[in-house]
Amino acid sequence: MNDAPSTSIHIAVPPSPAAAYDVIVEPGVLERLPALLAERAPAASYAVISDANVARLYGTAVVERLQSAGLSARLFIHGVGDAAKTIESWSALADELLAARVGRDRRVVGLGGGVSGDLAGFAAATLQRGVAFVQVPTSLLAMVDASIGGKTGVNTKHGKNLVGAFLQPRLVAIDPQVLRTLPEQELRSGAAEMVKHGAIRDVRHLEQLRDDAAAVRQGHGAALHQLILASVAIKAAVVARDPLESGERAVLNFGHTVGHALELLTDYRLPHGYAVAIGMVAAAHAGEAASITEPGTARALRETLAALALPSSPPMPLSADALLAAAGTDKKGRRGRTRYVLLRRLGEVAQPPDGGWTFELSDDIVRQALAALRPAAAGQL
Amino acid sequence: MNDAPSTSIHIAVPPSPAAAYDVIVEPGVLERLPALLAERAPAASYAVISDANVARLYGTAVVERLQSAGLSARLFIHGVGDAAKTIESWSALADELLAARVGRDRRVVGLGGGVSGDLAGFAAATLQRGVAFVQVPTSLLAMVDASIGGKTGVNTKHGKNLVGAFLQPRLVAIDPQVLRTLPEQELRSGAAEMVKHGAIRDVRHLEQLRDDAAAVRQGHGAALHQLILASVAIKAAVVARDPLESGERAVLNFGHTVGHALELLTDYRLPHGYAVAIGMVAAAHAGEAASITEPGTARALRETLAALALPSSPPMPLSADALLAAAGTDKKGRRGRTRYVLLRRLGEVAQPPDGGWTFELSDDIVRQALAALRPAAAGQL
Repeated sequence: MNDAPSTSIHIAVPPSPAAAYDVIVEPGVLERLPALLAERAPAASYAVISDANVARLYGTAVVERLQSAGLSARLFIHGVGDAAKTIESWSALADELLAARVGRDRRVVGLGGGVSGDLAGFAAATLQRGVAFVQVPTSLLAMVDASIGGKTGVNTKHGKNLVGAFLQPRLVAIDPQVLRTLPEQELRSGAAEMVKHGAIRDVRHLEQLRDDAAAVRQGHGAALHQLILASVAIKAAVVARDPLESGERAVLNFGHTVGHALELLTDYRLPHGYAVAIGMVAAAHAGEAASITEPGTARALRETLAALALPSSPPMPLSADALLAAAGTDKKGRRGRTRYVLLRRLGEVAQPPDGGWTFELSDDIVRQALAALRPAAAGQL
Repeated sequence: MNDAPSTSIHIAVPPSPAAAYDVIVEPGVLERLPALLAERAPAASYAVISDANVARLYGTAVVERLQSAGLSARLFIHGVGDAAKTIESWSALADELLAARVGRDRRVVGLGGGVSGDLAGFAAATLQRGVAFVQVPTSLLAMVDASIGGKTGVNTKHGKNLVGAFLQPRLVAIDPQVLRTLPEQELRSGAAEMVKHGAIRDVRHLEQLRDDAAAVRQGHGAALHQLILASVAIKAAVVARDPLESGERAVLNFGHTVGHALELLTDYRLPHGYAVAIGMVAAAHAGEAASITEPGTARALRETLAALALPSSPPMPLSADALLAAAGTDKKGRRGRTRYVLLRRLGEVAQPPDGGWTFELSDDIVRQALAALRPAAAGQL
């Protein structure tokens, strides 16, 4: 036996197998969920996770339908709203799931808005180091955004989504019919992310959103069904190329730098979609001021947002200084500098000459953009 | 725009890139950690995580050495012992890391025994959905077992390691010199997992452990260095073939079905390695009783364990009924039935004819094996 001072063993872990899943957009799909789950995510048992509102509207019926079809299923209920997206809620949920012996041979089904999906997904990601997961989003925002792409997690006092995991679902089942019961404010909030998808990738999607704004605002109709599909397709294409958010996925943050700052400054009273809408207009103005974005882009964006009854300017005066400071705490910032996704024109993001997907902007440019949000009171938002 | 009742979008997420990392076994490697980290895991800053004991013995010095080398580093301290491996500790740690703005451009370094590695690893896995992680194990058990293979997590009241994540480290740096300060009971506990590695894969490793038992029990010497390397190599080969524990990795549970039951029944007062040692003897007796394991295997295993001052029978009488019931709650059980890893002979696991890596045994066979643990008081353990 020799006395080698150092030896090293190399461990090569093979790549995890490619994950592939379908996003099914189908009116009435909630009713055929038993057959769909049995086929696409077969399991000994299903743990359906919802908040109390969704449980009453759909959760109890879904679980009864699964049981009637001979599947073992149980409903788990968490608190309502973003206030429930905490480590404590996740921990309580994990505890209930473990008490019910939900293990690797079970499936976790997140049924509800983004909070349910993120909370249920993080529970699935961490229970016995990973239980297979199905998303059944019931809000427009969750359908076109939160349920696609495998992000799960909770908020902490330090910021949103700062603790979490990536877990690709086995299936996303979207029933546009449930949108009939969604409050108009939530429909609009989801529509903002759809506008974002058009703005970064497909100007025709943007035009369609403007033309079919009534269907979006009312939450029903074949046009809305098609618009959801188109938005899912755009988000799916981006996340499939960058599943762990190491590059291109940054384009999905268009409007989110200023958007997050607005949410922070309004103590999250401003709905996420409204904040993103205003943030997108700010980013368009900033891009135009920096001669990166085609002139007229901000104006066209405002028109689409107006058709969807979405705001283009903040609901109350806010100082540019406070907004710049709040934008600096966005976790997407690289090495502490605030970075912005900018458009080249509607339907196309701009890329900086050094590659990458985001731009660093001078405070002057950002101030100009913020001032442009409310021409009537320049200098103050 | 048509009115198609259902449409589906297929998302194909590419496989995550193959993870590859080195396990470096080198006396004195703690002293050259700054150069090693700068080369193998370069980052803006390092968050070193230890319990209070390891912090005092090594943590403060490691952080000072990193700082002297011009690296930004900070020490984070968690509670001592398995009692600290909880959701609450993880949550407090995540909170401290977030307060210190540890994000994706930082590295988390777990410096300590299995508790530090599992806790720091789970924090790294969940902070902003994943921060790169380095393992610097300081107990023998962590060196040869816990630090290799990417398992992270915490215990809950429902059982051990029931909440966690897989996160492959970027590097594992093992300094055998720190074992000089490890209590003999902890050295023995680690040695039990080394015996397991020999028992399932390499009879020569088992013989070497018996021949060099003194070096293991004293915690120093070139022989111990080589034995650690050999154990790491065996564990590394298994986990590289089955990183997410979907099959072959089950062989690492040899001795753990009865072992976990003993831990449960003794309220975790029995050290893990001692429980595994007794569990391995039980599994060998069970395999012999079922005519799956070569006769004489249990006896040879007992001799090796005795040389390492490890027990072959439980420290107090325990009823076979209680042990069978406790074994049934092992989370490795498939669909609730208790399954056992069995040897064909020393150095080789048996595989059931249907493939797979575990056997279901009749209660009678298990009772026979448990009785054989203490021939003097058959029927009672």
